[in-house]
Amino acid sequence: MIGQLVDFLLGRPLPTSAAIHERLTKVKALAVFSSDALSSTAYATEEIILALLVAGSGVLGLSWPIAIGIAILLVIVSISYRQTIHAYPTGGGSYIVAKDNLGQFPGLVAGSALLIDYVLTVAVSVSAGVAALTSAVPDLQPYRVSLCLTFVLLITLANMRGIRESGSIFALPTYMFIVSMAALMLMGIYRMVSGVGAVETAPIEAVMPTQALSLFLILRAFASGCTALTGIEAISDGVPAFKKPEANNAATTLTWMVTILVTLFLGITYLATHYAIHPLHPEEPGYQTVVSQIARAVFGVGPIYYVIQASTALILVLAANTAYADFPRLSSIIARDRFLPRQFTNIGHRLAFSNGILVLGLLSSLLIVVFQGYTHSLIPLYAVGVFISFTLSQAGMVVRWWRRREPGWRHFIAINAIGATATGIVLVVIAATKFLLGAWIVILLIPTFVLMFLRIHGHYVHVAEQLRLKGWTPPAPATHNTVIVPVGDIHRGVVQALRYASLLSNDVRAIHIEVDPARTERLRSRWGEWGQGVKLILVPSPYRSTLSTLIQYLHEVDTERDDDVITVVLPEFVPRHWWENLLHNQTSWILNTALRFQRNKVVVAVRYQLDE
Amino acid sequence: MIGQLVDFLLGRPLPTSAAIHERLTKVKALAVFSSDALSSTAYATEEIILALLVAGSGVLGLSWPIAIGIAILLVIVSISYRQTIHAYPTGGGSYIVAKDNLGQFPGLVAGSALLIDYVLTVAVSVSAGVAALTSAVPDLQPYRVSLCLTFVLLITLANMRGIRESGSIFALPTYMFIVSMAALMLMGIYRMVSGVGAVETAPIEAVMPTQALSLFLILRAFASGCTALTGIEAISDGVPAFKKPEANNAATTLTWMVTILVTLFLGITYLATHYAIHPLHPEEPGYQTVVSQIARAVFGVGPIYYVIQASTALILVLAANTAYADFPRLSSIIARDRFLPRQFTNIGHRLAFSNGILVLGLLSSLLIVVFQGYTHSLIPLYAVGVFISFTLSQAGMVVRWWRRREPGWRHFIAINAIGATATGIVLVVIAATKFLLGAWIVILLIPTFVLMFLRIHGHYVHVAEQLRLKGWTPPAPATHNTVIVPVGDIHRGVVQALRYASLLSNDVRAIHIEVDPARTERLRSRWGEWGQGVKLILVPSPYRSTLSTLIQYLHEVDTERDDDVITVVLPEFVPRHWWENLLHNQTSWILNTALRFQRNKVVVAVRYQLDE
Repeated sequence: MIGQLVDFLLGRPLPTSAAIHERLTKVKALAVFSSDALSSTAYATEEIILALLVAGSGVLGLSWPIAIGIAILLVIVSISYRQTIHAYPTGGGSYIVAKDNLGQFPGLVAGSALLIDYVLTVAVSVSAGVAALTSAVPDLQPYRVSLCLTFVLLITLANMRGIRESGSIFALPTYMFIVSMAALMLMGIYRMVSGVGAVETAPIEAVMPTQALSLFLILRAFASGCTALTGIEAISDGVPAFKKPEANNAATTLTWMVTILVTLFLGITYLATHYAIHPLHPEEPGYQTVVSQIARAVFGVGPIYYVIQASTALILVLAANTAYADFPRLSSIIARDRFLPRQFTNIGHRLAFSNGILVLGLLSSLLIVVFQGYTHSLIPLYAVGVFISFTLSQAGMVVRWWRRREPGWRHFIAINAIGATATGIVLVVIAATKFLLGAWIVILLIPTFVLMFLRIHGHYVHVAEQLRLKGWTPPAPATHNTVIVPVGDIHRGVVQALRYASLLSNDVRAIHIEVDPARTERLRSRWGEWGQGVKLILVPSPYRSTLSTLIQYLHEVDTERDDDVITVVLPEFVPRHWWENLLHNQTSWILNTALRFQRNKVVVAVRYQLDE
Repeated sequence: MIGQLVDFLLGRPLPTSAAIHERLTKVKALAVFSSDALSSTAYATEEIILALLVAGSGVLGLSWPIAIGIAILLVIVSISYRQTIHAYPTGGGSYIVAKDNLGQFPGLVAGSALLIDYVLTVAVSVSAGVAALTSAVPDLQPYRVSLCLTFVLLITLANMRGIRESGSIFALPTYMFIVSMAALMLMGIYRMVSGVGAVETAPIEAVMPTQALSLFLILRAFASGCTALTGIEAISDGVPAFKKPEANNAATTLTWMVTILVTLFLGITYLATHYAIHPLHPEEPGYQTVVSQIARAVFGVGPIYYVIQASTALILVLAANTAYADFPRLSSIIARDRFLPRQFTNIGHRLAFSNGILVLGLLSSLLIVVFQGYTHSLIPLYAVGVFISFTLSQAGMVVRWWRRREPGWRHFIAINAIGATATGIVLVVIAATKFLLGAWIVILLIPTFVLMFLRIHGHYVHVAEQLRLKGWTPPAPATHNTVIVPVGDIHRGVVQALRYASLLSNDVRAIHIEVDPARTERLRSRWGEWGQGVKLILVPSPYRSTLSTLIQYLHEVDTERDDDVITVVLPEFVPRHWWENLLHNQTSWILNTALRFQRNKVVVAVRYQLDE
């Protein structure tokens, strides 16, 4: 029955042989890998504006130079990552690059930063996608959290089913988003230049400053905007998915992606500045996203506006979906290195890493509930992990060039060093300006995770040592089997167990722990007829504890001889319905569990299945 | 470690031989058995007043005739119960009397009514006890629910420990309550007669009627006051605890108890009427119990007042405690008749029916939380069960006299018939007037419980039939043991399991389900050296499901021959800490669980314990 439910939700199981990987053209690859990066334009500008707004709406003009700074950073990082693509044609995720060049520990730091980041990608993208929806349909606002959780559930289920036709599924929404954003920008600039002005000049009230403008505030606005960089590393992780020549195609696609990303990000920021747009605080009723405000100003509320909102929501959901490829893959790699539970390497029903998918779904749902689905509250946690992994990855590349000294290494090292330094500085800026707003959570979590990785690893190494065959001298095998059958009563199930026990050895003893004299007497009187010739031993138990009396007895048997193994045969009857188990003392289960920790004891369950 | 915690909370285990019962003198017995009955005077009068109050404070004078009616009912019921005491010197609880004379089904109805009632006794008494406290110390009012739950927890723990010295523990608070209530009445009447008037005439505002006075309202007030009868049956349940001659002593004690009860109840009602006292609605801030108001009027707020409140609280807590003797005992009797899970018959660590005690503690805590610790909200549920059990018990006695026709049976039958008729009529009155206020819950619950009893009984009868040896022709015993060892890998634990398997039979097969070709290859290459001479069989599993492939394979083995039993030996390693299990695939546990439902399969767990 459970099997049928699983089949219904996830589809029929797929054979291992079905795991054939689709190779992507550049056009499809752009769609698959860029949704995370491009979708961040839906909120990055807004975050800059919200950060500046505490100094009053008068200073919002500053968002333009800040955006220029971020665009420059984007270009630097992308040039740096082009080198990673060429150096790691089999996929150069930060965990691998850092581990390879800097060592296991920095690799684990990058790994934990990335895992946390993927969880945040889901939470942030889904929240922002729902914000795009509720901006268009304000009546949905009260259902924000439920909507977010529904999306997470759907994405989780879709990934448990395994998304096979990824290239085609992704192409439409991604290009729809790019086209509709381009249309927004062109029309916006046309209205500006031609002097037609906004269609709908919503009454945006000026906000009074609550703090003086300071360098700290400007840096915090910059840090907030740096969420635009999230997702930029996706292509370097996925080089093997490209058609040949993989590295060249991937590098070209990266350049395309960054060009589009920079254009959209600057365009949206420029229009927001020009139309003097700023959002309400996200928790106030009537809140709309900045993109929604711009779209209303440029197109008015009509079909085009709704297309823009829908494609924004869609690409954000797709962005969340990319984390569902990344998180399970990375956790399976880390688990293969034995730093995470090995269950993460299990390949499920439909050839996906099901456990990673489930854990990601649960953790991101938790974040959404805790932060009530407010993108703005999640952002301070978001960028820290990304920039840690950027910095470690590029620093790893620097070390790599230094060690290898391949032709042109000075040039390469310079580029990656610039990248590492730039992202390193930004990391410090983000950590400092966002610390109290929530970055501290991530800064605490990363070392916690690394510590957990190390403890898990310690356990696996320890177990492997204890189970290793090489160099092991096994003890002399047992030649005698001492079989003990605890009996509380005698019935068909016990008879079956006694017969089985007699098959195992000629040293079989039935043990009855005396708790109730009447019961003991009844057992004794029927033993002659039904005891299958097995010797019945009565053991008194003044404190009525069957368990401890039995274990005490087994210890005594243990001392009898050295060449034996002790087998405990537990008669057990199995009712047809699980709830019927509640009506019976679970003596067999309790004994079985307690005997787990007793050396040299083998436990045999002889079950008697009851009929309907 | 768990064992040590249990010892700390409950004390060292007691040997079965320590179960010696104390025989009680009449004076001690009165203390032990009357706390439930006497303590109801703490709220019965108040309930009459609250019921009348909807017709305005002008009609409160009616509480006096209503109380007289209830007192008459009390006398009738007690005379009727004296006969039960003589007829059932070994203890005549309603379940036993009804089952004995009316049949199993009426017995179960009485049993379920009683069990529900005991849960309510705990909830009502503890809530009323806390109300006595918060009347004296109003600052405690917001902590009402927490206080109630703390009391329930303490009583539960005390009973889990087993209260051995019951007689002496009970004597002091019970007699303190009787004395302080007597003092209250005497002083109250003295002040009245001498015309001194109240010490503290609290400004009790007149309440305007919201309903016209009607017969229905008067009957409802009567029904509310009938909670004074709860607990009156306690002595008839506990006859064997008395010193010899048990029945005579018990009957005398019952007469004493009823005399005291009637005196206190009438006295309190009379004083309440005289001082024109009525409480605020219990959910309003500043609420005080009626007894507290009377005590303030008679003695003022001083040492005597606090003694009265303290002894009231104490006797109410003791009343709750009596349910902790009754519920576990009754549930163990019903469980012995196989209408409740047999776990209720287990005698715990300290010779108490621990499971019944725990269930009672949980259920009454639940009631307290649901009803927010308001006595008044619980009362409508309370009396229904009591009167069902009264009626069934006395009706059972009528049938008994009729069947036996012992000398004087006409006289006896008349007395019990009057009792049964009176309580039957009151039962109808209570059910009708309190139905919408909450009695419907109990009226629904009782048949639900009876249905549950019958289903449980059906299960036990069915299991007993299927396990019965008499008339059973056992199938021919197996002569061959086909031993299967599923192996995923080879390590020390597997070697140990293979050796054990070889001890069982000479038909041993190691089965490896092929999921990962690299792993299979590694296993095959090491099998020669470490396989202990056991044949290794490789089974392909295109869908990667170890479980279903193995079960499929076992089905095939099943068809090989008819004279065998199939033994599945599961190698398993046991880490030192429970959390380490999370780091391993629980293949062994999953296989073991799945094999529970396979006929003719014996499961053997060969454990390899890892060192620290």
